[in-house]
Amino acid sequence: MPSRRDAPAPRETLAPDGRARAVIEGISPAVDGGRFAVKRIAGDRVEVEADCFADGHDMLACVLRHRAEGDADWREAPMAPLGNDRWRADFTVNAPGRYRFSVIAWVDSFLSWRHDFARRVDADDLRIAARGGADLIEAAAQRAGGDDRRLLLRWAERLRTQDDVPALRVLALDEASAAIAMRHPDRTHATTCPVEFPVVVDRERARFSTWYELFPRSCAPVSGAHGTFRDCIERLPYIAGMGFDVLYLPPIHPIGRARRKGRNNALEATASDVGSPWAIGAAEGGHKELLPALGTIDDFRALVAASRAQGLEPALDIAFQCAPDHPYVAAHPSWFRKRADGSVQYAENPPKKYQDIYPFNFESDDWQALWSELESVFTFWIGEGVRVFRVDNPHTKPFAFWEWTIARIKRDHPDVLFLAEAFTRPKVMHRLAKLGFSQSYTYFTWRNTKRELTEYFTELTRGPGRDYFRPNCWPNTPDILPEYLQTGGRAAFAARVVLAATLAANYGVYGPAYELMENEPREPGSEEYLHSEKYELRHRDLARADSLAALIGRVNAARRDNPALQRNDGLHFVSIDNDELIAYTKVDPDTANAVLVVVNLDPHHVQSGWINLDLADLGIDADRTFQVHDLLTGARYLWTGPRNFVMLDPMRIPAHVFRLRHRVRTEHDFDYFL
Amino acid sequence: MPSRRDAPAPRETLAPDGRARAVIEGISPAVDGGRFAVKRIAGDRVEVEADCFADGHDMLACVLRHRAEGDADWREAPMAPLGNDRWRADFTVNAPGRYRFSVIAWVDSFLSWRHDFARRVDADDLRIAARGGADLIEAAAQRAGGDDRRLLLRWAERLRTQDDVPALRVLALDEASAAIAMRHPDRTHATTCPVEFPVVVDRERARFSTWYELFPRSCAPVSGAHGTFRDCIERLPYIAGMGFDVLYLPPIHPIGRARRKGRNNALEATASDVGSPWAIGAAEGGHKELLPALGTIDDFRALVAASRAQGLEPALDIAFQCAPDHPYVAAHPSWFRKRADGSVQYAENPPKKYQDIYPFNFESDDWQALWSELESVFTFWIGEGVRVFRVDNPHTKPFAFWEWTIARIKRDHPDVLFLAEAFTRPKVMHRLAKLGFSQSYTYFTWRNTKRELTEYFTELTRGPGRDYFRPNCWPNTPDILPEYLQTGGRAAFAARVVLAATLAANYGVYGPAYELMENEPREPGSEEYLHSEKYELRHRDLARADSLAALIGRVNAARRDNPALQRNDGLHFVSIDNDELIAYTKVDPDTANAVLVVVNLDPHHVQSGWINLDLADLGIDADRTFQVHDLLTGARYLWTGPRNFVMLDPMRIPAHVFRLRHRVRTEHDFDYFL
Repeated sequence: MPSRRDAPAPRETLAPDGRARAVIEGISPAVDGGRFAVKRIAGDRVEVEADCFADGHDMLACVLRHRAEGDADWREAPMAPLGNDRWRADFTVNAPGRYRFSVIAWVDSFLSWRHDFARRVDADDLRIAARGGADLIEAAAQRAGGDDRRLLLRWAERLRTQDDVPALRVLALDEASAAIAMRHPDRTHATTCPVEFPVVVDRERARFSTWYELFPRSCAPVSGAHGTFRDCIERLPYIAGMGFDVLYLPPIHPIGRARRKGRNNALEATASDVGSPWAIGAAEGGHKELLPALGTIDDFRALVAASRAQGLEPALDIAFQCAPDHPYVAAHPSWFRKRADGSVQYAENPPKKYQDIYPFNFESDDWQALWSELESVFTFWIGEGVRVFRVDNPHTKPFAFWEWTIARIKRDHPDVLFLAEAFTRPKVMHRLAKLGFSQSYTYFTWRNTKRELTEYFTELTRGPGRDYFRPNCWPNTPDILPEYLQTGGRAAFAARVVLAATLAANYGVYGPAYELMENEPREPGSEEYLHSEKYELRHRDLARADSLAALIGRVNAARRDNPALQRNDGLHFVSIDNDELIAYTKVDPDTANAVLVVVNLDPHHVQSGWINLDLADLGIDADRTFQVHDLLTGARYLWTGPRNFVMLDPMRIPAHVFRLRHRVRTEHDFDYFL
Repeated sequence: MPSRRDAPAPRETLAPDGRARAVIEGISPAVDGGRFAVKRIAGDRVEVEADCFADGHDMLACVLRHRAEGDADWREAPMAPLGNDRWRADFTVNAPGRYRFSVIAWVDSFLSWRHDFARRVDADDLRIAARGGADLIEAAAQRAGGDDRRLLLRWAERLRTQDDVPALRVLALDEASAAIAMRHPDRTHATTCPVEFPVVVDRERARFSTWYELFPRSCAPVSGAHGTFRDCIERLPYIAGMGFDVLYLPPIHPIGRARRKGRNNALEATASDVGSPWAIGAAEGGHKELLPALGTIDDFRALVAASRAQGLEPALDIAFQCAPDHPYVAAHPSWFRKRADGSVQYAENPPKKYQDIYPFNFESDDWQALWSELESVFTFWIGEGVRVFRVDNPHTKPFAFWEWTIARIKRDHPDVLFLAEAFTRPKVMHRLAKLGFSQSYTYFTWRNTKRELTEYFTELTRGPGRDYFRPNCWPNTPDILPEYLQTGGRAAFAARVVLAATLAANYGVYGPAYELMENEPREPGSEEYLHSEKYELRHRDLARADSLAALIGRVNAARRDNPALQRNDGLHFVSIDNDELIAYTKVDPDTANAVLVVVNLDPHHVQSGWINLDLADLGIDADRTFQVHDLLTGARYLWTGPRNFVMLDPMRIPAHVFRLRHRVRTEHDFDYFL
């Protein structure tokens, strides 16, 4: 026989507490394992799940811990088992800000004792187990105070002295006493998930917003005059009347004179050319100054106040780039790259040159001062009452800069929202959303067919991005006049605004170009507008009889009145037997509000088809009549069963936006539609 | 106008290097974000992918870094772009052990310069850009030495002086010079993924093994005698002859006498009862001693040597539990729980009691000594030449203990393999595999129908576990006689061994019960064997005419000869129009070896059907005849096209194991089958 060898292991390599037997895995919601925050809205319940289990057959207890960042103490919520070792609890986030959560689990000796006790049968076994339980309950009493301690000690004492087995069983399994003991668990060897999962909570507008982009300089009442903030104030009732709630202004700063672009992006400007608002900075100042032609800071303040009074929140465009005559260029030469001939490096994508724009050099040795100065641009305008920023081309500035800036600004101003204007590769767009942008522009602008729209919105609403990427869908922008709008006429403009407004809780249009259906490209094959407002003043007749303003107003009213249209997560595509027709429902589970949208994607022909609703999903009985109420026309129809016929004429309105109204029988046996 | 506010940000909160512009995400392969190791086999190429990108349009460079743990230096391999910001590289792991890898990415100014240069058109622009490039190349020269430095300096000099534009373009884009510069990149602001992803590399046997479980005490040549290690040596040619390569012995230690169980798990043993080998420990010793009736340590060593000589690797059963008379109980009372009456807590699952077994108390204050002692059980038997351990019920010991023990043992002995005998909940089984077990028992034992088998093996071979969970499939064990085997007769035994052996690269049987088709349960509805070998000696006639030994030998020979059957990742289920027939192919991409298996799951009736092969996936031309060669019967058939008829009679052999042989035309225009 070999002799027994003694244990040789050096103790210091052991696990810190090998008695922590519970393990925690697979916590959700999480973005990249907790590296980035999930996003929620104030008032939301955050549902947290985790896989928690231990070796053996002992009972586990799990709690969710959560707190607002800055709170000294964690709050805890017990987690309930869902089966298959999955546990769930939730907490409500009441105010904008950052929160954190994590999970704690432990093998609970009291619960294990109780579970086993209920299954024991022979008398001796029960008596011995009762004494073991009394030990555990006395230990719980030591952790408790006041009444709980007293009650637990008395319970333990009775467990030790009760000899009658049926009475002992009743006593040991007493629910009320168990509840007291469970308030004082032994967490000596609990496992705490080391990752604290962040949650960024925004105000309601982050989830549901309706944007209108407007060039203030085109708001003058007479043709040829340079519009002002005061002119813009006159325009507000028109915009608010269409139901928009964010008024987004392109840059309002002094516009560079050096290498200024002329009309239609001409290389040479004439003396009368106003230049591009994105060529920021001139002798008058840079990102913290106003273009004098627009007005004074008092005029701007008046516009901010007047907008808010009409329910329109002002949003500024932040474009971190400089015209050659921006004061930064002289004051901070190290913030710009030099070409080998000593000149400042302009923006370029060879062979294209953008000589009117100097990008910042984020690899500058003086990068820290640059970051701080750019952050101060945001805080300056926050000081002027702005709380929404549309950031121009954030994907051409370092990710680390955005993560730092947005976190710092939202720490002091959790109500500030950032929209990322990044039309670029998918992983880049997702990264920007992960690191803090509240909303993101999307590929919606180029998704036209039923298949494209179905795939893209399924990805947006069901894919991993649903926890951090909030789409904001635009059928047009000053930079993008999509081909579908160039060729589809009024029906195309109507269809695209209905799609944007009902597929996405956040959407926007660039107006008045949109409602006036401007559709001429600079040249065939181009997505640039002819006579682009980026380079010249425009004067328009808003009262034109064919304007889409009234239709847009009805669409936005439908959004305002139907909670289902104010969120993305209730979207389901509905089968319809015609590829030119797309149909989908949106449901708000809290209010049972349900909307069915059908759009004719063919702007040239009448299209019809049979729709096949999932009535169970909509909470509608298959054998009861329900009403569909078209919020665009006011028409009401009674339908029964899942299959129903629809026909849409693009020459009239190419879409139905139906509110589904259930027939509800009241206690007085009287039917009405909900 | 408001006055410009100066930047207020405190510098210390800035990112450590805000100029590191590249980001790295989504590295694969990874288990739980790098918390656990992925598993590979010596000789494997580890294919690593990552999402790498930066802001803007500059060019990125990425490298994979990798090293064996303990190596001082990282090795690097350049990563190649796959599109959509995904990059890939691989490295080969040559020997068992632990490895680590990570990813580094940076914005490469030289590559960006070169990319832009190729697109520039006007002469001035090219000349200025050439000088900018010369600056970068001179900087690269500073990082280089020897010839590279000299060549780079000369190249830079020529770029500065060449005035002819066509010549300058050729010079600047010279491939050979670029290759030199790219050997000396500027990685000042590189991003290194902070997670080092671990890889555990095992020897070949971890991926491909064929187990035979045998009770040595039942190997005596005459009925009633207690078998010995020497008797077991006599049995080896029979086992090796069937093609097994792991000989797994239930515990070989002294068996407790206190509360010993009798035949058929009777509570009271008679004087002649031999007890359960899993009731470990008696006066003679515990986990490091041998049961005297089996032989001496020299006999054991002789068995180890004789096994290896026949290609059979010995595997020991490690069951961390004690009989009441195990020496640990007296020597280390703190390693066991006490009941309230002062007695030692036996194993129980109320109302069931297992009074012959004392579990260890891993919550003992003396847990560190316990861990060390248990580890020393492994190292003791490793010292005796054992390299494979089948661990009994690892899910009833803490996860942290296994992670610690297995890591320590494999650090010193990377060739040691651990099989987890955990028939328990899925997440528990997966956790054990993640933390280090080399192979795992599976639910195969109870997966009988086509749908069950298809779903389960799809999950095993395509689910996330494929990187860490190596299934080892057993149609029976001494504890489990599944109902299908109880009622299905010889055909059931034949079908189940073919399924285990061809669906999984690792499988095993408990013999000779298996090849002799023992199928009587202790009572109806039980999965326990009648006259279970766990509680008594068994004597059998191995030469029985109906033995499955010959068939098993042919199945194992097919495994040995066909690399496709030695791995799990080449499995594809094949459509066949009969639910009682299951069909699947396995392909080894390295050798183009391909096998088609068809099994009749109905042990009572002839079943036939039309199979529909995916010929493209198998590399077979749809219009050329190929041969299917049945490795169980030797029959060969010529098939053409995807649809072919199969019929299997369970009274004969309920399975085909076809090797697919392509017809290959040689240079002498002579056909043969590969």
